Amino acid sequence: MKAKAGDLVFLYNSEKARFLVTYQPGKRVSTHLGEIVLPDDLEYGAAVRSSTGAVFYVLMPSTSDIAMKVRRTTTIIYPKDAGWMILEAGIGSGSKVIEVGSGSGSLTIMLARIVGPEGRVYSFERREKFLENARENVKRAGLLDRVEFALRDPAVEGFGVEDVEAVFVDVPEPWTMVPPAFEALTGGGAWISLSPNIEQVKETWRTLKSHGFVRFKAVEILEREILVREHGVRPRERMISHTGYIVSARKVNIPPEEASEIVEN
Amino acid sequence: MKAKAGDLVFLYNSEKARFLVTYQPGKRVSTHLGEIVLPDDLEYGAAVRSSTGAVFYVLMPSTSDIAMKVRRTTTIIYPKDAGWMILEAGIGSGSKVIEVGSGSGSLTIMLARIVGPEGRVYSFERREKFLENARENVKRAGLLDRVEFALRDPAVEGFGVEDVEAVFVDVPEPWTMVPPAFEALTGGGAWISLSPNIEQVKETWRTLKSHGFVRFKAVEILEREILVREHGVRPRERMISHTGYIVSARKVNIPPEEASEIVEN
Amino acid sequence: MKAKAGDLVFLYNSEKARFLVTYQPGKRVSTHLGEIVLPDDLEYGAAVRSSTGAVFYVLMPSTSDIAMKVRRTTTIIYPKDAGWMILEAGIGSGSKVIEVGSGSGSLTIMLARIVGPEGRVYSFERREKFLENARENVKRAGLLDRVEFALRDPAVEGFGVEDVEAVFVDVPEPWTMVPPAFEALTGGGAWISLSPNIEQVKETWRTLKSHGFVRFKAVEILEREILVREHGVRPRERMISHTGYIVSARKVNIPPEEASEIVEN
Amino acid sequence: MKAKAGDLVFLYNSEKARFLVTYQPGKRVSTHLGEIVLPDDLEYGAAVRSSTGAVFYVLMPSTSDIAMKVRRTTTIIYPKDAGWMILEAGIGSGSKVIEVGSGSGSLTIMLARIVGPEGRVYSFERREKFLENARENVKRAGLLDRVEFALRDPAVEGFGVEDVEAVFVDVPEPWTMVPPAFEALTGGGAWISLSPNIEQVKETWRTLKSHGFVRFKAVEILEREILVREHGVRPRERMISHTGYIVSARKVNIPPEEASEIVEN
Repeated sequence: MKAKAGDLVFLYNSEKARFLVTYQPGKRVSTHLGEIVLPDDLEYGAAVRSSTGAVFYVLMPSTSDIAMKVRRTTTIIYPKDAGWMILEAGIGSGSKVIEVGSGSGSLTIMLARIVGPEGRVYSFERREKFLENARENVKRAGLLDRVEFALRDPAVEGFGVEDVEAVFVDVPEPWTMVPPAFEALTGGGAWISLSPNIEQVKETWRTLKSHGFVRFKAVEILEREILVREHGVRPRERMISHTGYIVSARKVNIPPEEASEIVEN
Repeated sequence: MKAKAGDLVFLYNSEKARFLVTYQPGKRVSTHLGEIVLPDDLEYGAAVRSSTGAVFYVLMPSTSDIAMKVRRTTTIIYPKDAGWMILEAGIGSGSKVIEVGSGSGSLTIMLARIVGPEGRVYSFERREKFLENARENVKRAGLLDRVEFALRDPAVEGFGVEDVEAVFVDVPEPWTMVPPAFEALTGGGAWISLSPNIEQVKETWRTLKSHGFVRFKAVEILEREILVREHGVRPRERMISHTGYIVSARKVNIPPEEASEIVEN
Repeated sequence: MKAKAGDLVFLYNSEKARFLVTYQPGKRVSTHLGEIVLPDDLEYGAAVRSSTGAVFYVLMPSTSDIAMKVRRTTTIIYPKDAGWMILEAGIGSGSKVIEVGSGSGSLTIMLARIVGPEGRVYSFERREKFLENARENVKRAGLLDRVEFALRDPAVEGFGVEDVEAVFVDVPEPWTMVPPAFEALTGGGAWISLSPNIEQVKETWRTLKSHGFVRFKAVEILEREILVREHGVRPRERMISHTGYIVSARKVNIPPEEASEIVEN
Repeated sequence: MKAKAGDLVFLYNSEKARFLVTYQPGKRVSTHLGEIVLPDDLEYGAAVRSSTGAVFYVLMPSTSDIAMKVRRTTTIIYPKDAGWMILEAGIGSGSKVIEVGSGSGSLTIMLARIVGPEGRVYSFERREKFLENARENVKRAGLLDRVEFALRDPAVEGFGVEDVEAVFVDVPEPWTMVPPAFEALTGGGAWISLSPNIEQVKETWRTLKSHGFVRFKAVEILEREILVREHGVRPRERMISHTGYIVSARKVNIPPEEASEIVEN
């Protein structure tokens, strides 16, 4: 398969020399291993050499690569967490989902890749600078056609969208998004939030319970890298050991007081 | 949103009483909490009562629910692993992917949900009984339109498919799939395999290295459940602590010997 | 080395057939693999056969074995946690320490083994039945010479002991033990508590901070078993994933208000 | 309690300013927070001020502190691992144990603290520079009275010691120590080794199995730090995720061939 002008391509020499660039024929890319000139005809899987002779492979970036390589103005959501969230929310091609806040757009990109051109991601952010950065990151990933950004605080103004399948929440006070999420979700739809602290998990759980959500879960996902070498295999010595706790729940159309009677842990 | 005849719906009372059923108006579902009669008009998010008065919520099953609730004739791939694999492979709506073996169809279902109606999952299995069970599970999930099953050992006969974006491998000797995967993958495409034992990871890595694959990674994903109760929050006392190691790599169009010269860990 | 009458010996056939018994020449031990008659002359490392021909090795029980094999009337403290606690407390041969509550005596046994005949473990418990069971377990382990049990609630009555090097706390409200622990500890001595819930950790931390303790730490210790087989090495599929959080701190001889000014996380 | 000249004391301001020093009245200690002059009369738990006014608490160092603060010429064994190893070996006050190699002396110190003045640690090292550094570290910890160092390769020359309760092995090829460990151990005594790579675990297991050891275990111990703050509790974002796998087994006095018949995993 050939790269088209505008495609994001991943130039890969090693984990320490890898670059995510937008392809244009003749484009020059400066790296610490010399300059790379992208040819007019660029085949995925091919190798190009930099001016110093270093070999770079032309790879299709994975969704994880694009999400991790956004320009960061905030902490980002990691693929290990996003993968679980996406399958738990049950979304796929054609889904309509909400995200709040946009952050640096890393989750936006992963959601946009999954819902596809037939789907829709409504992404809310109340800080203009962050929203602009997120939009730039999504645009660079070529996914802007399926994402609508809104500068707004949904805790105050609501989401203004209806019948979405899932609401993804990554704000410091996720519980403030429970009432607007209840309004925006279709019956049986999914609440998914991510928070670093236990107190946030507990307060979110309390609020969900008292607002007609059921099937509460809280999990933590850990990713451990394994070093594979001929002389010995072992886990890497250091790892990112905490990003956040994921909370999920489902909206139901019944009065909260009834819900709290019925549902237990 | 209303359920349509043939939809999979998730009848949820609690984690200990939850049922994945195919909706038909008037259908009777027997449970240990009594019989449920599904009404003619079924709204997602509604609650139905069983003959003993137990309340069941009508939820849209998540992708994880469907994948975990397949009829199992083999061990299955868990959402915690599949989520990471999907984002690492970079697949989304419209992707064309290979899976081997079909197993019980749990990964098939997750892939099919992600590639959507425009995409394609080619699922290979060499044991007929397993293939039939996987097909039944995928059919029940309503995803058969985008999945093609083939009874075949690709280590011997090849995949017979070209230009796929990713090959997902879950067989006891994953390294035997490296040559056919190389043939089937588009340049820069993704190898993703999952194996329980370290020896399998090492042999797969060796074979990938000598067959023109680069950017090798091996990871392990752990999912830890957190119990949230008013009187105390803590991780659950027991967990599934190992399912398998995930191996990923990328195909490149250059002679293996050159690749092995250039790429190191 | 030979076993002496009264020694605890570990009769080991496999992880599923292993028995901790008090040695007496001629003693009969009934097992699901038949009866074992202990010979008059019993060498550690020897093998004895049961009436059904099963081989049992005569091992010296490890401290972990004895601690895990106590008769349990409560949850017990695991060696993975106790090992960390002992080294963090800095205790060794000859140390004088407090424990509250006695529970089933598993930590008591590990502490008693470490402080040795020259040391002293003061073990407090307010429920008589538990204390009696703990004492029986310690007696059976042959360690009663260095342990003093007291039936008492130290939150109300204090410990009545001075200049101990460390206080080990395993009660539901550990913060209630902070004032008596401050009284009992020597300057610079160690507070070590273990609690399952995050809320307990936080309340203990708050109380320690306001009572002249410094150098607060909280950790969690995970033990993962690895299965080693000729055909494949991997972690076991299930594990105990949570026992409790360990909290440690050090007593200092200065007014709390000064302490809280100086010390930060 | 008062510090005596020659005591190791731990001067603690915060986790970022903490010093392990040998106490002498009037001694001057230079730190990045100014100079501290140790008074003639030094009470544990007291606070001293540096020339810049920073407060340092005078704490008794824990065993963990001393082990972690050795001058390192090698990687060291961590308290999370040593604690488990000590309780699994079953050693305590008065025990006679072997260690190979001495490394930087961190495990030597932990073992010496546990076996006490009545016990004995035989520490073997074949690289003179390392042995000298380990000896210095043990001497500084005030524990040299119970440790005997030997410059020797026990794989070639044997340990020359008999009837020890446990052999602790931390060398790159632990399996080479199995025959001399079998000679040195008392019946039923403990083999404990620590290795970073899976291949080392497997080879050690094979060798132990064919040399009359039983009750093989392999575990990995993980220590996770919890950050406790008024505004939020969570695990620290990064951790040391791998130090090594611990292998334990027990020596039995029967021919290997019989052992291998009887014992399974």
